[in-house]
Amino acid sequence: MAMISPSRRVRRTPFSDGVEAAGVKGYTVYNRMLLPTVFESVEADYHHLKKAVQVWDVACERQVELRGPDAGRLMQMLTPRDLRGMLPGQCYYVPIVDETGGMLNDPVAVKLAEDRWWISIADSDLLLWVKGIANGYRLDVLVDEPDVSPLAVQGPKSDDLMARVFGDRVRDVRFFRFGMFTFEGRDLAIARSGYSKQGGFEIYVEGGDIGMPLWNALKAAGEDLDVRAGCPNLIERIEGGLLSYGNDMTDDNTPHECGLGRFCNTHTAIGCIGRDALLRVAKEGPVQQIRAIDISGDRVPGCDRVWPCYADGQRVGQVTSAAWSPDFQTNVAIGMVRLSHWAEGTRLEVETPDGMRPATVREKFWA
Amino acid sequence: MAMISPSRRVRRTPFSDGVEAAGVKGYTVYNRMLLPTVFESVEADYHHLKKAVQVWDVACERQVELRGPDAGRLMQMLTPRDLRGMLPGQCYYVPIVDETGGMLNDPVAVKLAEDRWWISIADSDLLLWVKGIANGYRLDVLVDEPDVSPLAVQGPKSDDLMARVFGDRVRDVRFFRFGMFTFEGRDLAIARSGYSKQGGFEIYVEGGDIGMPLWNALKAAGEDLDVRAGCPNLIERIEGGLLSYGNDMTDDNTPHECGLGRFCNTHTAIGCIGRDALLRVAKEGPVQQIRAIDISGDRVPGCDRVWPCYADGQRVGQVTSAAWSPDFQTNVAIGMVRLSHWAEGTRLEVETPDGMRPATVREKFWA
Repeated sequence: MAMISPSRRVRRTPFSDGVEAAGVKGYTVYNRMLLPTVFESVEADYHHLKKAVQVWDVACERQVELRGPDAGRLMQMLTPRDLRGMLPGQCYYVPIVDETGGMLNDPVAVKLAEDRWWISIADSDLLLWVKGIANGYRLDVLVDEPDVSPLAVQGPKSDDLMARVFGDRVRDVRFFRFGMFTFEGRDLAIARSGYSKQGGFEIYVEGGDIGMPLWNALKAAGEDLDVRAGCPNLIERIEGGLLSYGNDMTDDNTPHECGLGRFCNTHTAIGCIGRDALLRVAKEGPVQQIRAIDISGDRVPGCDRVWPCYADGQRVGQVTSAAWSPDFQTNVAIGMVRLSHWAEGTRLEVETPDGMRPATVREKFWA
Repeated sequence: MAMISPSRRVRRTPFSDGVEAAGVKGYTVYNRMLLPTVFESVEADYHHLKKAVQVWDVACERQVELRGPDAGRLMQMLTPRDLRGMLPGQCYYVPIVDETGGMLNDPVAVKLAEDRWWISIADSDLLLWVKGIANGYRLDVLVDEPDVSPLAVQGPKSDDLMARVFGDRVRDVRFFRFGMFTFEGRDLAIARSGYSKQGGFEIYVEGGDIGMPLWNALKAAGEDLDVRAGCPNLIERIEGGLLSYGNDMTDDNTPHECGLGRFCNTHTAIGCIGRDALLRVAKEGPVQQIRAIDISGDRVPGCDRVWPCYADGQRVGQVTSAAWSPDFQTNVAIGMVRLSHWAEGTRLEVETPDGMRPATVREKFWA
């Protein structure tokens, strides 16, 4: 791959100076912002993530803030997940759909108060959809992107590191809940969440000016824990079945195709813009769905485009993320497979840039 | 800068194979798609663009298609430019604004028919805003992203190259008009437009399958014209004052701040969502505006963030694009400067990563 050219349009983050000092070797662009992809090597980062603790610059998880009397109503218009039971202090993973039921994003909604929400977005300008809906329906709500940049702390030693900086109370934060904690006199929301299966937190850093002080404080506090700069790890997130919007799903897909039916309450999510479109698929199920796929043979190359999957010469699906897993000694992959071929153990052929590879549909992800 | 990691989310284009074969050395990501930034070197590409002809993969200029009885009404809701006199076959550069008058994009609108438009977008998911507005106002219009990938032919020998592939009739296409031309049995819209000041065309390639055949046909037809793969050139576009959305302007800016007041007819653009917000600035003018800025001294580094501008110790603006110009033997730059300091000849100091530099506000761009 080629180099990425400097441009203000590809935004730096409050933590970019720290990321560069830590020797970042690769980036992607996510929400028009730099997102590190590799420090030592993808495999070395992976082993370290599973045994120690990493600090991740995920400022590219931009926030869409909803404020005002209609904030809750607007939030429910965006998603087929029923939000009526959600309390301030909770985080919900919410599929966001358009009027056809197509996925526009798969963010985490953070309920700060009855009339104030953050939507911590995946890679699409969800702000524009939310602003358009708020304007078109003349809702009484302010919608904008605040100066909030998430910093993730991930890995089995996350609790120990976080407790040293924020106090032992942070250990009590439950999964997909958040609490308010103070750093340098500023109140920050800290949630137990993150884009790995190794445990950890996401700190919603409000105000870019405290980005590097917080980065440095975490680094200094965790030297004996072997804390390092890290980033979402391709291998680990495929093993864990963590989907990537734009890779594993697009606006062509319904939440049910993405295996996110358990986050949809289509019948009771009254007001959701995509509800009508999703009622049938919610009842009858999708004709294709996300699956874990085991690809045989040596290490596959980087998956930078769709890899078609075949059975008996017919196209029956596609792989969209793949990587060699050192722990499972196979190529782990995520793909979308048609109903006729998605049962556990079904043999497929995957067309990779290196040629056809035998592959097997799995029932579950690896970790 | 670091490498860019492979991912389906950062989309390849129908021309990526040609771009890679031509030895692309750098990319940026634009509308979640790969956009080449350099082939031989930015300066070598620049000299070649000014004397020969280049073929540019600008597939990242994605199209938002509006189809249906309300397409024209929706198009006018998006922009303060009065579209009533626009005819099918015309292209208009249109600032797109939200309800506060903030710029959401600065695309080219292509009027295919009274009830069918393409919006050829700069770097933001304008599709989501347009879909949200169409949904909220319950307009009778289909909005989606068609399989259309622009390919630009730019440089002084563009007419000669294009005539060899599409026939001499292409020479008659006037500036910001388009005509329909046939390639391999497919009708393609070809406009006299493009993101350079060297003349040329943009081919709206409908159907990714003919991308490489067309790329190869243009290459084969122009060998004696020294046709090469190229891309939007940082130096040339700054010299010509071609703005870059996300670099030189964001949703914080009104069209008037961006010097785009001449593309606004705020009083007569009835229906434009941002009209109320823009009436006052249209009448009284903005308090800051885009200016050409000449930065003294040696070659400046890459501008990957805002460079603040000062006068008498006060911050009076910012530079957002800058490059050394071989032809003008100075650092050419684009910035936003406050009213008090935007007059021609005003001396500023620009804070670059290399330190403070003297700079001068110019009346016009260089070319």
